[in-house]
Amino acid sequence: MVKNLEHIGIAVKNLESANKLYEKLLGTPHYKVEAVESEHVLTSFFKTGEAKVELLEATSPESAIAKFIEKRGEGIHHIAFEVEDIHAEMQRLESEGFRLLNSEPKRGADNKLVCFIHPKSANGVLVELCQDCTS
Amino acid sequence: MVKNLEHIGIAVKNLESANKLYEKLLGTPHYKVEAVESEHVLTSFFKTGEAKVELLEATSPESAIAKFIEKRGEGIHHIAFEVEDIHAEMQRLESEGFRLLNSEPKRGADNKLVCFIHPKSANGVLVELCQDCTS
Repeated sequence: MVKNLEHIGIAVKNLESANKLYEKLLGTPHYKVEAVESEHVLTSFFKTGEAKVELLEATSPESAIAKFIEKRGEGIHHIAFEVEDIHAEMQRLESEGFRLLNSEPKRGADNKLVCFIHPKSANGVLVELCQDCTS
Repeated sequence: MVKNLEHIGIAVKNLESANKLYEKLLGTPHYKVEAVESEHVLTSFFKTGEAKVELLEATSPESAIAKFIEKRGEGIHHIAFEVEDIHAEMQRLESEGFRLLNSEPKRGADNKLVCFIHPKSANGVLVELCQDCTS
């Protein structure tokens, strides 16, 4: 089972201006910016209780974020749930009939191992599973 | 400022089948179902740590959820942040230039007073502010 809603990911065109806007909206500054080169994204994070808000700007037209914005405009791109053991959870969900977008966990932002579930398996929602690798 | 990410709202066509699917996905059953007649929706809630997952099914074609699904299909409809004092927060955001969708808080699901911010004010994200009225 999942432990908790870890973050929501919002696709934005310009991280700098979105950071300013979300700082005003949430009343709190972003606490870090991180590039995930394998995904061609630049990300920033806001603490909003236990769950975070992650903003994502594409750094290349091949990025999934660039394609998402081209198709649907800016907006919520994914939601992420933290799990204890991502391999076990991927196996459990696959056996339940969920379609996973990667067969092995990959390295995401924020020192996490991540895996995505196809939106067709989850009522149109792109769901990320993530396992913290800090400890 | 906002206190925490309180829930994410997902628009679904059929609450019963979506409940079954999200039970499998999250590994936890929904803990309540609630109708919000003023909004023409039937909702269900899942506990996922501090932040909840709310599924919403339209009970009438006039419902915002019905219109959302017709336009974009099922998917994430809104994200909600808890605030201490919704009137003060609405005033603060309006003075910062955010466009609010209601001028007075209205009664939402889960014993909350709620207000929505226009997606154009928040990089394509429909943001709800909510204040708990339990205590």
